[in-house]
Amino acid sequence: MTDLVSLSVRDFNVALASDAPAPGGGSASAAAGAMGASLLGMVCRLTLGKEKYRDAWEELERIVSAMDVSRATLLGLVDEDTRAYDAIVAARKLPKETPEEKAARKKAIDEATILATTVPLQTAYFSMEAVVNAPAVLEKGNPNCASDAFVAALLLSSAVEGALANVRINLPGILDAGLAESFRSGAAQAAGRTAEAMTKVRALAKAKELTA
Amino acid sequence: MTDLVSLSVRDFNVALASDAPAPGGGSASAAAGAMGASLLGMVCRLTLGKEKYRDAWEELERIVSAMDVSRATLLGLVDEDTRAYDAIVAARKLPKETPEEKAARKKAIDEATILATTVPLQTAYFSMEAVVNAPAVLEKGNPNCASDAFVAALLLSSAVEGALANVRINLPGILDAGLAESFRSGAAQAAGRTAEAMTKVRALAKAKELTA
Repeated sequence: MTDLVSLSVRDFNVALASDAPAPGGGSASAAAGAMGASLLGMVCRLTLGKEKYRDAWEELERIVSAMDVSRATLLGLVDEDTRAYDAIVAARKLPKETPEEKAARKKAIDEATILATTVPLQTAYFSMEAVVNAPAVLEKGNPNCASDAFVAALLLSSAVEGALANVRINLPGILDAGLAESFRSGAAQAAGRTAEAMTKVRALAKAKELTA
Repeated sequence: MTDLVSLSVRDFNVALASDAPAPGGGSASAAAGAMGASLLGMVCRLTLGKEKYRDAWEELERIVSAMDVSRATLLGLVDEDTRAYDAIVAARKLPKETPEEKAARKKAIDEATILATTVPLQTAYFSMEAVVNAPAVLEKGNPNCASDAFVAALLLSSAVEGALANVRINLPGILDAGLAESFRSGAAQAAGRTAEAMTKVRALAKAKELTA
């Protein structure tokens, strides 16, 4: 199959809307995160090189490089998420006649479930890593792009929250309690750091009259 | 130029990240809204025809058709938003030597600003029209797709809020006070109805353990 991110925006949406369960919310969350990282990168680019924002250059130089990496990583996760879902479906279809087959199938489902949990956890983690830069970009970036930085933060925050919902639905299927607990704690950390960044973003957005 | 929605998801993100101010947050908001509408449509499709969800069929039949229309409309707005921005840039470049030229340029900028305000207002409105269906889809749709319905609601809500930020930045440039006021009131209405839907969505998401 063609990579999802090689589809046109139009056809990617058709694929999301179809009655195939994948691509679904996990891939859409990663795509939203990629758009957020892209937009933060754009705001940095429209600030760098402009003399009157010179004080912000050093910080935004660092952020623009990080956002290019985030964009590429999150685009990769759009496809990873759908592949991980497909792996669960494939594992469930394995034969289950003999005790050996049953054991092999159970192991395959277990491994696929772990994969299908770590992929959205990565989407949440990398989107969180991007959104923590949003307050600095909104505060110090080119003010003509303030709404772009705000949209970026909203999309990244939704990507974190949406991806974490996909982590949580898989947790009951993780048989290793220690592993499940580490996923839960990783999820809580990503959610917490995102909420913290968004509190700053919302205060700045209100001050800049981007929200009522 | 090629339509933005005909670009691959990868290249659309490259365009967002580039140092060209458009496509920016307005187009990204519409794209996020389209993904949200697409996902709500998917959840409906994975519910319709399944006997055990028969009670929900009638309502979800209506929603799935509406979501297909929303998807197409919001994808159209991805391109409309960038065209509206480009029209402002073109108007600003008009000659301003003679009084006649100055007046014509002022009128062109004014008209382009009105267009650049109504486009994100449409994005906000159509995303709001979609998200008000999210509580029903999350509550009555196939429970295996609960996280998809939740992601859909998050993306649509971000689309509304992001598009409204793009409406608000243009309001000071609208010379007709009555028109500016009607835009402001339309924005407040879309924000209010979205917030109302999201309160229901968040309560359902918590009950379904999609959020902590």
